[in-house]
Amino acid sequence: MDLDERFLRRALQLAERGRGHTHPNPLVGAVVVKGGRVVGEGFHPRAGLPHAEVCALEEAGPEARGATVYVTLEPCNHLGRTPPCSLALLQAGVARVVVAARDPNPVAAGGLERLKGAGVQVEAGLLEEEARLQNEVFFTVQRKGSPFVLLKMALTLDGRAAAPGGDARWISSPESRRVAHAYRQWLPALLVGVGTVLQDDPHLTVRDPDFRPFPHMLEPPPLRDPWKVVLDTEARTPPTARLFRPGPRGEAPKVLILAGAGAPKDRLKALEAAGAEVAELPREGGRVSLERALAFLLERGLDGVLVEGGPKVAGALVERGLVDKYALFLAPKLLGEGRGALEGLAVEKVAEAKGLRLARVERLGGDLWLEAYPEG
Amino acid sequence: MDLDERFLRRALQLAERGRGHTHPNPLVGAVVVKGGRVVGEGFHPRAGLPHAEVCALEEAGPEARGATVYVTLEPCNHLGRTPPCSLALLQAGVARVVVAARDPNPVAAGGLERLKGAGVQVEAGLLEEEARLQNEVFFTVQRKGSPFVLLKMALTLDGRAAAPGGDARWISSPESRRVAHAYRQWLPALLVGVGTVLQDDPHLTVRDPDFRPFPHMLEPPPLRDPWKVVLDTEARTPPTARLFRPGPRGEAPKVLILAGAGAPKDRLKALEAAGAEVAELPREGGRVSLERALAFLLERGLDGVLVEGGPKVAGALVERGLVDKYALFLAPKLLGEGRGALEGLAVEKVAEAKGLRLARVERLGGDLWLEAYPEG
Repeated sequence: MDLDERFLRRALQLAERGRGHTHPNPLVGAVVVKGGRVVGEGFHPRAGLPHAEVCALEEAGPEARGATVYVTLEPCNHLGRTPPCSLALLQAGVARVVVAARDPNPVAAGGLERLKGAGVQVEAGLLEEEARLQNEVFFTVQRKGSPFVLLKMALTLDGRAAAPGGDARWISSPESRRVAHAYRQWLPALLVGVGTVLQDDPHLTVRDPDFRPFPHMLEPPPLRDPWKVVLDTEARTPPTARLFRPGPRGEAPKVLILAGAGAPKDRLKALEAAGAEVAELPREGGRVSLERALAFLLERGLDGVLVEGGPKVAGALVERGLVDKYALFLAPKLLGEGRGALEGLAVEKVAEAKGLRLARVERLGGDLWLEAYPEG
Repeated sequence: MDLDERFLRRALQLAERGRGHTHPNPLVGAVVVKGGRVVGEGFHPRAGLPHAEVCALEEAGPEARGATVYVTLEPCNHLGRTPPCSLALLQAGVARVVVAARDPNPVAAGGLERLKGAGVQVEAGLLEEEARLQNEVFFTVQRKGSPFVLLKMALTLDGRAAAPGGDARWISSPESRRVAHAYRQWLPALLVGVGTVLQDDPHLTVRDPDFRPFPHMLEPPPLRDPWKVVLDTEARTPPTARLFRPGPRGEAPKVLILAGAGAPKDRLKALEAAGAEVAELPREGGRVSLERALAFLLERGLDGVLVEGGPKVAGALVERGLVDKYALFLAPKLLGEGRGALEGLAVEKVAEAKGLRLARVERLGGDLWLEAYPEG
């Protein structure tokens, strides 16, 4: 492997240490190399804390002068909560900057031009695909202006999400459920419909995740539970539901109830008393508008949403083209009759079915683990 | 690779030349080796024609004396339409016989003992799994006493076999459909419910098959259409249906209508006039009994049945535990509402779902191609 690629891969690995903590910022990793030797490493740990380049330069100290800096994403060029990284690189006197992906954010971009203008040798594009994939939430949000939506479903091979009476424990294998928990850790919000709360009374916490979805991750990042978001037009979530309990690491639960305008005030009050943040959102066809719900989440700083059901919510999201990525766990089981995966989605002809592009096909504890993107 | 294994693999390849033509006999291939050189090769082409060992010995001629014979299945020891192969091997004066799988048929078995008793060196068990898999129809029929049933389904990732109105053209990719045609060529009978005939009016012929399911096959065997079997309690198959048309190679169609006792006589007569063989079978719960239908097919010499639908027939077979193998083509599409894969199969709890063991997971023209066996 080429040296540039090796150091850039190392930067991708460093970036992973922030997985699940950097929202709304991207994951970024950086490596400072002098005379073929790594003299500084850094990653962006959390919004408000220093950027990856700054951490790496700090570790390198005076060694940074004349060094090459490898960074997974174009150094920012704007003054946010921290000074622009392009400036820090110039002040450190680096000779060369190698970047995987350009910054799609028009506010922050321009870092490479500034460096080039100041006489620094700059290169971009090596491992760009991998760097973009590592930050698919960030890139998707920049492009769409709404949150990245990952729909996770555990289905039997004949496409059933539950037995006719609603029993769904467990469709998928323990191995699949551990990977599913890595998705929970990744994205800042975990969304379910109130039907799932009433049927299963889930905890919606992150427990013992298996981080296989993230190929560059060497060690698990610190665990944290996501915001638990309930689509709950009539505020039927019981204030005694398990999702109000403290998380497995003792953290206070973050619960967000998205109710419809005009939901019963007493229930909203009871949910607030139980610790929930409550939002009343416009209705569409009687229910909370999905588009408005997603827009609200983004405004609220939650730029990635893992949707875990049930079939009504999933069907509505697919029908409206709001899903950015699918994670499917197909269990080698047949249920026959039972709840379908996507309720309310009706397509007249097979030719009009929603097409997917499979990006991952793996066997996982007996199940099939698929990742897919909407086609076109 | 060990020499014995190499020659036995060659015998497995030769056996494949009979694929789809040897019923009710197994596929068998044989190689005669003298001084490290192949001096004779043979395979069993069709019931009533010579067995593989005899063909290979004939090609070897006097070179067979003192030679080693590699054969995929234990040489038969009984006088059927041809003399016992064990006798032929003794008469040819071979020194050693290497066999992959023992013969499960109590009538034909005993060949190895006879050879051993006559001083021939015999070995068995090398590549046994592959040899058994090559003849899974034969081994399953011996064990169960009823036909081998392969259920083929083309489904969307959300488990739909058709759009709500019945449209199913096409769920799966052209590549998947070509592999499906290899299954048609393999098994002597292709079974559908009358609903499929009425809905799709299919030809049910073998066209341009892709023989990937059979790993040892080097060249396609001569093509032939299967018996087209319709489960048709009330004899509603139209005498003008496409399945009565001559096949793509000009062959006369072989159509078998399995009607229920007491089906309208005039319709049965019309179907016979159209060229069908008609059987009236006992009913169970108003419909043709599936167990009786399978028993009838085996008596009729049809020991392997490919089931291609629809969801009612598939659900009933799975519910009764009559499926021996599954071939699933999962298309990366979502249909939402629509026809399920298995109608009438109802399981109360996920823990009681029908479990499968995945034996093959491959990507095929964008689809996922799975083969699976019922668990336990």
